[in-house]
Amino acid sequence: MIGNFTEENSVETVNTRMGDGIDPRLREVMAALVRHLHAFAREVELTQEEWEAGIAFLTVTGQLCSGERQEFILLSDVLGFSMLVDAINNRRPPGATENTVFGPFHVDGAPERQMGDCISLDGKGESCLFTGRVIDLHGEPIEGARVDVWSDNSEGFYSVQQPDLQDKWNNRGIFVTGADGRYEFVGIKPVSYPIPDDGPVGKMLAALGRHPNRPAHMHFLVTAPGFQRLVTHTFVGDDRWLGSDAVFGVKSTLVAPFEHVRDGRTEWRSPFDFVLVPVSQ
Amino acid sequence: MIGNFTEENSVETVNTRMGDGIDPRLREVMAALVRHLHAFAREVELTQEEWEAGIAFLTVTGQLCSGERQEFILLSDVLGFSMLVDAINNRRPPGATENTVFGPFHVDGAPERQMGDCISLDGKGESCLFTGRVIDLHGEPIEGARVDVWSDNSEGFYSVQQPDLQDKWNNRGIFVTGADGRYEFVGIKPVSYPIPDDGPVGKMLAALGRHPNRPAHMHFLVTAPGFQRLVTHTFVGDDRWLGSDAVFGVKSTLVAPFEHVRDGRTEWRSPFDFVLVPVSQ
Repeated sequence: MIGNFTEENSVETVNTRMGDGIDPRLREVMAALVRHLHAFAREVELTQEEWEAGIAFLTVTGQLCSGERQEFILLSDVLGFSMLVDAINNRRPPGATENTVFGPFHVDGAPERQMGDCISLDGKGESCLFTGRVIDLHGEPIEGARVDVWSDNSEGFYSVQQPDLQDKWNNRGIFVTGADGRYEFVGIKPVSYPIPDDGPVGKMLAALGRHPNRPAHMHFLVTAPGFQRLVTHTFVGDDRWLGSDAVFGVKSTLVAPFEHVRDGRTEWRSPFDFVLVPVSQ
Repeated sequence: MIGNFTEENSVETVNTRMGDGIDPRLREVMAALVRHLHAFAREVELTQEEWEAGIAFLTVTGQLCSGERQEFILLSDVLGFSMLVDAINNRRPPGATENTVFGPFHVDGAPERQMGDCISLDGKGESCLFTGRVIDLHGEPIEGARVDVWSDNSEGFYSVQQPDLQDKWNNRGIFVTGADGRYEFVGIKPVSYPIPDDGPVGKMLAALGRHPNRPAHMHFLVTAPGFQRLVTHTFVGDDRWLGSDAVFGVKSTLVAPFEHVRDGRTEWRSPFDFVLVPVSQ
């Protein structure tokens, strides 16, 4: 039987080709992917030249990927796809701290530091005390929560982006809460920075009339036994890019106070509580 | 203004970020792409692990691309995307010869040969006379049509796949029609072959329970002044893969007779007329 491939039957023709014994979830995901991709091509009546441009774009994007750079994650980020997947997988009840994108700059195995320690090892930037509690939905403190934090330096670069210029653990550390659920550490008031924009994704952003900047933020990965993993940032409220984050990571509940401190240990103070959701919920 | 990114407003949030002065077609295509990609993720509730698997797949696919191999075209082909784009861009009136995928194995600048010449330079395979006319929708012969043909060799490889084993122009040539619109050349009865399946696309096909084979076919690129460019194949009718071409290239109108010849110049004879459509139509 020769089934003629047509514009009308293209999805069915491709999807009925899948074998019987395959993984049911793979079948579901691939069938939907083919259906949506074909609907896209049909809707815009994609030209042969546009298809060629798309192939060339994907090719260059892949060829730029290396151990140090992940251009496809960047692409997913700037299309809002990463944030959408994050939202789908982290639906939380009201009052819980919201998730946002993990980003490519976390490093596993940061040193566990003493409460109150400073994570800024280069002494640059405006010092800031980050402080608050890790609590549950009833406001009860969570003991033994691991608060893994990371930020850029005062020039907008993460340590992994400058292995020759920064200590690997500059602006990184892990703090474990005690019975009061409190965390406290000194870092810098983070600064905004552009995502890497010298590759195909940067070119795409320029063609779309978009800037590549992310508003200033501190990263938090908060984990505790019995609670859902929280991946989030806190944002500096007066950042000029707050309303136009290139990767759509901003949520209004994640904008933290950054209070200027007179005659204190640090120049700034940023209080923020993290509210975790039990695993069962 | 901080617009919270949500599952519900994700498409609007991303698409309203585009600048005012950008190319209107780019805006249309990107807006539709974002809408369909987000609809896909929402529909299947794509998990974080599946997203990571997707990023890894695209990365490996890109890294495999080189001057000799185009894994993204292969991906587009096996998802039926290439054939859909081909169909959208080559809508033709009844009676016209249908298009099919161009494929990655054409080489520009094949030698122009004398009508009746043999394109099989290695002397392998079952010889076949390909013959017919290039005509318009009224059956009138088209003079000066360039018939650019290429096929695999008897072992299922195109010359470009075996630069050390085959002459660059083995099983390739261009024939220009005279006033009678006739073309005639000797090649081999083509054989079926698997698309390159040692990369991520091959792994994907295996996971989907699909085979990588293409039914045997002869490629034709037929051009003539004043007529639409025709990119097509003729297929051997008794091929076991005719109903399940890995890239969905088969159309029933493109299955050609392959007649066994007794005591002839060749072992087979395959007559086929190509009907071109004027550019204006």
